[in-house]
Amino acid sequence: MVVTVVGIGLIGGSMAITLKESGFAKHIIGVDRSQENLDKAIRRRLIDEDLELNEGIDKADVIILATPVDTMKTLLPAILDRVNQQVVIDVGSTKVDLLETVKSHPKRGRYVSTHPMAGTEYSGPEAAIPNLFDGRCTVLCDVEDSDEDAVSKVKALCAAMNMRIVYLDAKSHDVHTAYVSHISHISSFALALTVLEKEQDEKRIFELASGGFSSTVRLAKSSPAMWVPIFEQNRDNVLDVLDEHINTLARFRSLLIKKDYESFEAMIRKANTIRKIIDK
Amino acid sequence: MVVTVVGIGLIGGSMAITLKESGFAKHIIGVDRSQENLDKAIRRRLIDEDLELNEGIDKADVIILATPVDTMKTLLPAILDRVNQQVVIDVGSTKVDLLETVKSHPKRGRYVSTHPMAGTEYSGPEAAIPNLFDGRCTVLCDVEDSDEDAVSKVKALCAAMNMRIVYLDAKSHDVHTAYVSHISHISSFALALTVLEKEQDEKRIFELASGGFSSTVRLAKSSPAMWVPIFEQNRDNVLDVLDEHINTLARFRSLLIKKDYESFEAMIRKANTIRKIIDK
Repeated sequence: MVVTVVGIGLIGGSMAITLKESGFAKHIIGVDRSQENLDKAIRRRLIDEDLELNEGIDKADVIILATPVDTMKTLLPAILDRVNQQVVIDVGSTKVDLLETVKSHPKRGRYVSTHPMAGTEYSGPEAAIPNLFDGRCTVLCDVEDSDEDAVSKVKALCAAMNMRIVYLDAKSHDVHTAYVSHISHISSFALALTVLEKEQDEKRIFELASGGFSSTVRLAKSSPAMWVPIFEQNRDNVLDVLDEHINTLARFRSLLIKKDYESFEAMIRKANTIRKIIDK
Repeated sequence: MVVTVVGIGLIGGSMAITLKESGFAKHIIGVDRSQENLDKAIRRRLIDEDLELNEGIDKADVIILATPVDTMKTLLPAILDRVNQQVVIDVGSTKVDLLETVKSHPKRGRYVSTHPMAGTEYSGPEAAIPNLFDGRCTVLCDVEDSDEDAVSKVKALCAAMNMRIVYLDAKSHDVHTAYVSHISHISSFALALTVLEKEQDEKRIFELASGGFSSTVRLAKSSPAMWVPIFEQNRDNVLDVLDEHINTLARFRSLLIKKDYESFEAMIRKANTIRKIIDK
């Protein structure tokens, strides 16, 4: 199988490694608007060759679109314009907007909307790592609009990456990801800003910060080029979650002001139940 | 050196392991109001024997008070009532309140206010681990009120744990910890609650949650018995930080509402600068 990865960054690059190592892909073609990224990807052996987009499409069996989600809205229809029997997937974190752009496309069936639920706070081809996806889950959206053989090929691709599959409609996907992913990023960005603005003495933060702090602000290192378009495309859901998150923080604040430590403790006990979800 | 640890949990137990392994302590005595904890600590070889508090004080060279901070306010004066030439340290996350309780104590000089900046989201003797403190920093507060030989002994104890020392007055300590530690916990508790309340379908969260989500809510597993007294004792500083954190989130919210993605991106870029602090 020849796989073309459009956008050789953290996700595209990590998929390239995994699909090659698993034997799913015999040959990996890289397409990227940055020649520097392509050169790095060749040096790191993430890809076997780099080509222009059209050539990459023509030579591929499977095309993986792994750019920021704003670029996807232009590229996905353009790629579908050119495909014949190839299968096209995107790996974006928002789905409704993107699906809207190709909903009436004559080649819609060749496209399978795919979201592998994994990542790190780093970006670019230098951030690509093996095992990023191992044992995690991939969401496939609106599969009833894709051709059966295309879905089968994507299932095989997920199996090659050792990923479980969850089926969701695009609208539900965007609501869930606002909760389990997008809000975590805003919370981390805000926490980093809060501390940076107050603690002008960076040396002091550096000295005092323990593992707990690093853990909660880790995502604040994430790339704006990737995340701003996600917040833009999933704006309404993110606003809903953000409102609820601010309300929850305001409840903690109000209990502190009233010195109601009993209710404060009850809220913490409830928050503790997250254990059964994240202690896998 | 005989070291008595009062409160054999995550911090007390981890210190017991480290001080014994480094050779600083020849013999470790455990004191805990829970006999079950003491039995576990003996089984895990965190301590050599368990004793009642008074006997533990009498036999020790150094006494480490490692209970939740509310209990410390009762125990610290009681321990100082009984000490002769022993050195007493606490390892609490808030200092002003506790120092107030012993400020005029005739044995104040034997006490050194100590905060090793390390921890995990787990608690109890089963959570104790070696290397928890390795390379991290310990804050010593108001050392000018402690006897010189007591401070020297605590410096040697920190060196045995391979910890750097930072000197702060208690008031500054409490402000800094509100920023670099306490707010991270409230943020995690709130994030966990926000997601749990909305996502009633826990299986779905479990399936979709990736490493980023786990990282930001990790601290939400922390013990309320330890944390509620910290928030109570550091209430005013925590309220200040919480207000600022809510304001920062509200700024993100307002930019989303106005669709001002350029300013949104500028805020993320600023948050990204946390890299130079946490990428050690």
